[in-house]
Amino acid sequence: MSSTTASTTGGRLHGIGVGPGDPELMTLKAVRLLRDCPVVAYFCRRGGRGQARAIAEAHIPADATELPLVYPVTTELPHGEAAYRERIETFFDESAEAVAAHLAAGHDVAVLNEGDPFYYGSFMHLQLRLQGRHPVSVTPGVTSTMAAAAPLPRPLVMRDDILHVVPGTLPTADLRRALAGGDALAIMKVGTNLPRIAELLDEQGLTPRAWYVEAASGEGERVLPLSEVERSPAPYFTQILIPGTGERR
Amino acid sequence: MSSTTASTTGGRLHGIGVGPGDPELMTLKAVRLLRDCPVVAYFCRRGGRGQARAIAEAHIPADATELPLVYPVTTELPHGEAAYRERIETFFDESAEAVAAHLAAGHDVAVLNEGDPFYYGSFMHLQLRLQGRHPVSVTPGVTSTMAAAAPLPRPLVMRDDILHVVPGTLPTADLRRALAGGDALAIMKVGTNLPRIAELLDEQGLTPRAWYVEAASGEGERVLPLSEVERSPAPYFTQILIPGTGERR
Repeated sequence: MSSTTASTTGGRLHGIGVGPGDPELMTLKAVRLLRDCPVVAYFCRRGGRGQARAIAEAHIPADATELPLVYPVTTELPHGEAAYRERIETFFDESAEAVAAHLAAGHDVAVLNEGDPFYYGSFMHLQLRLQGRHPVSVTPGVTSTMAAAAPLPRPLVMRDDILHVVPGTLPTADLRRALAGGDALAIMKVGTNLPRIAELLDEQGLTPRAWYVEAASGEGERVLPLSEVERSPAPYFTQILIPGTGERR
Repeated sequence: MSSTTASTTGGRLHGIGVGPGDPELMTLKAVRLLRDCPVVAYFCRRGGRGQARAIAEAHIPADATELPLVYPVTTELPHGEAAYRERIETFFDESAEAVAAHLAAGHDVAVLNEGDPFYYGSFMHLQLRLQGRHPVSVTPGVTSTMAAAAPLPRPLVMRDDILHVVPGTLPTADLRRALAGGDALAIMKVGTNLPRIAELLDEQGLTPRAWYVEAASGEGERVLPLSEVERSPAPYFTQILIPGTGERR
């Protein structure tokens, strides 16, 4: 199954999950597709080639055409504002057209995506613009959440556990609601929100069960009980996990 | 990081996620560890060698010692009953001791786990019994949920989406509560509960957004809008997914 329909033409757009950071957590399928795609695209910031490319580097053929999609500098615009959103959407439109030019020429394009493309990934912005025009396939990858859970002494979810996956960037009222009612929690994109999140976990009595995981599976991985962590801003991709209790209902 | 402490001895216990079904969705790390571990254990039912072993088969060395951990036949006992639970817990105790005998002899043991070991996996029953005695590591894998999401026309979660992962085996009142409040839903272990789950989704107006995914990434994968599926019992590992809307808050 794929989003391909009979009316699509040209090369195939591959959204490829390259996993959470450790290059060994790439799948065999991701490695094969990279070997076979003549064009390799990836989102990155100005001055770098991005984390997804760093993970996949060993598997990008020397003769592949690389297509860096460089985020616009938006530091002067608050993220909540319409002007920021418009600029980012325009950037995704332009990126989709840059990719489409290769697809229209009949070349398959591999788009690298940290973790999994459909788990808060960047690839989807291309897929949502290009599906229907070109054939599209998504190759799932190991998520940062499962990589963050792996070193813990308890499973993230077992038996009848309900898991809530929650972006740590949510407004406080939404965050408070989202943290309640799950047996297990995975809080993403903790970053500068760490003090605010920790306070909400205190409020719900969850702090003693919470783990802090920075750079899951990558260089500089740090795994600590949240209670032992200073309540100051953390790197953007830091996660806070609360494993479920595994109680049967 | 791992659950290893200085007081553990003997071989290392590896919980290895082999991914959701497609053998190509195994990670490079899983393949390497299988090549290097002299003992390969897996849970299975009587008369078969189990799905995890089928996925990993090509990577199990011919000279590896295989240790099948065969579930007791419990069809005569209702799953909710104390007698069933006791029998299963005894089975896990015995399985842990069978694995521990190899670890005590100084051999590393790879335990195969469909999907990811810490995402409703079976490995955890061994880890919870053996950590502290022997060194333990978990290798994360692609989950069945991300494999089920990959063929859909929309990402499972994007931007500020909150995801609820919900076992479809929950009692109806718990299930109803768990289905509410998430932007995106992944309902696991749908099986015979399909009619009951579909009714709850109808109740909450979610059916038009729901997808039915059987055998994600494996042979016989079926992906359909839930509205086009007959409301009768489905295979156990069938999932129902509702992608998030990606609205910003």
